[in-house]
Amino acid sequence: MKVALLGPSGTYTHQAAEKYFDNLETQFCSTITDVFESEAETKFVPIENSLGGGVTDTIDLLEEREEKITGEVIIGIQHALISEEEKIEDIEKVKSHPQALTQCKEITNEHDWDTEETNSTAEAVKGLGSGEAALASEIAAELNEKNILKKSVQDRDVNVTRFLVLNGEPEAEEKTSLILKPGEDRPGLLHSMLSCFAGHEINLSHIQSRPTKEKLGEYFFYVEAETANGRLQKAIQCLETYGEVQNLGSYKSAEMPE
Amino acid sequence: MKVALLGPSGTYTHQAAEKYFDNLETQFCSTITDVFESEAETKFVPIENSLGGGVTDTIDLLEEREEKITGEVIIGIQHALISEEEKIEDIEKVKSHPQALTQCKEITNEHDWDTEETNSTAEAVKGLGSGEAALASEIAAELNEKNILKKSVQDRDVNVTRFLVLNGEPEAEEKTSLILKPGEDRPGLLHSMLSCFAGHEINLSHIQSRPTKEKLGEYFFYVEAETANGRLQKAIQCLETYGEVQNLGSYKSAEMPE
Repeated sequence: MKVALLGPSGTYTHQAAEKYFDNLETQFCSTITDVFESEAETKFVPIENSLGGGVTDTIDLLEEREEKITGEVIIGIQHALISEEEKIEDIEKVKSHPQALTQCKEITNEHDWDTEETNSTAEAVKGLGSGEAALASEIAAELNEKNILKKSVQDRDVNVTRFLVLNGEPEAEEKTSLILKPGEDRPGLLHSMLSCFAGHEINLSHIQSRPTKEKLGEYFFYVEAETANGRLQKAIQCLETYGEVQNLGSYKSAEMPE
Repeated sequence: MKVALLGPSGTYTHQAAEKYFDNLETQFCSTITDVFESEAETKFVPIENSLGGGVTDTIDLLEEREEKITGEVIIGIQHALISEEEKIEDIEKVKSHPQALTQCKEITNEHDWDTEETNSTAEAVKGLGSGEAALASEIAAELNEKNILKKSVQDRDVNVTRFLVLNGEPEAEEKTSLILKPGEDRPGLLHSMLSCFAGHEINLSHIQSRPTKEKLGEYFFYVEAETANGRLQKAIQCLETYGEVQNLGSYKSAEMPE
């Protein structure tokens, strides 16, 4: 199946897609926006990381473009420190995707390295210069024939990323993703909207606020709700009395990696 | 007053600090972490932007370090037309960061000026030649002893940023920032915790979820609550029946810029 995802080969996204799809035919893109704009029907994007939190570009594009979510997958992430240099002492600057930089702050601060953002972890490995190191997967180091100066340099061992499949094969309906847009700008409205889930005994597994970009302090909410008990449609009717609801699709819950 | 803030001089952060403090003695830092770790007692950090949303580095460091919030200030990003020339009629070319050029298309098209991209708005001011103007903050003009030919030349106020003051002079107690850490990992708990605010008729002006970095899907919440009605202490007692509450300080609400 042809799938648009963040490239180049060797990214964590690539690794996660290989885990999810049986016959993956990759169409690598350089940004999350490009993935959403790709002509490949099926798309594969990161949604949440245990250290960095929600992936804001993905949430904003889900809200704008209303692609159908059909699945999710979770993988563990371990960043290696990769370089053409042979010693950590010769590193002055570390490059990677902003999420990886966020996940490896301790080693970066400890060595007082400069940082540079790249579009992907693998791109950082390809563009390595003198005195530079990249934070990326071990497989990206091997593919590009670079040195691994240190393995597993992320701040915490529990570093897990969750990905969403867009416009793929439908599976079981266990979870549903919704965008909630309060009809008024009164923050107490979030409590009222959440009462629709509580009242219909629906558990939320995720909630993330994002600015509407219209005015300071005006937010929409991306939520993931359990679909299992069959009451979601009633909860959505309840939610619609408070504001606009976009249903982004229902899918099977992913299992946590070992 | 000595204040640590994001530099270099002439940035919009610098301008916001000048708006808030009467006798600002700047200590410029290159990252938000550096600001928090500065030995300057008073710190000044961005918390929310109308396009980007909550500033996650700031929220995570507020949770980790428990500095006392004592104030806030909001500024609109307003570009001034800055030059060595003294009359708008003598301008032939306008230089700035691409974002600023995009935000000031109307005046540029109206005068049929050429454009040139620079790495920052402050750099455009430093590199001004004959017949040239820069789009940058008013403070950048003052620092570089250039003329402000026209203030507020952006097409519309698309971009507003809110900043927090840490460990400054206490002011009126109108708002309180809290970190809420649910004691269990059940997402419906957010609704229960918000019911403490609703029950005591306290309005929330901001809520942002951030990962605890312990495990995927486990979040804490940064909230800003109105303190005015005197019931906040009761709401905090109510919240503490559901989890841990950090009180980050009370302060005066900032006014929106005109």
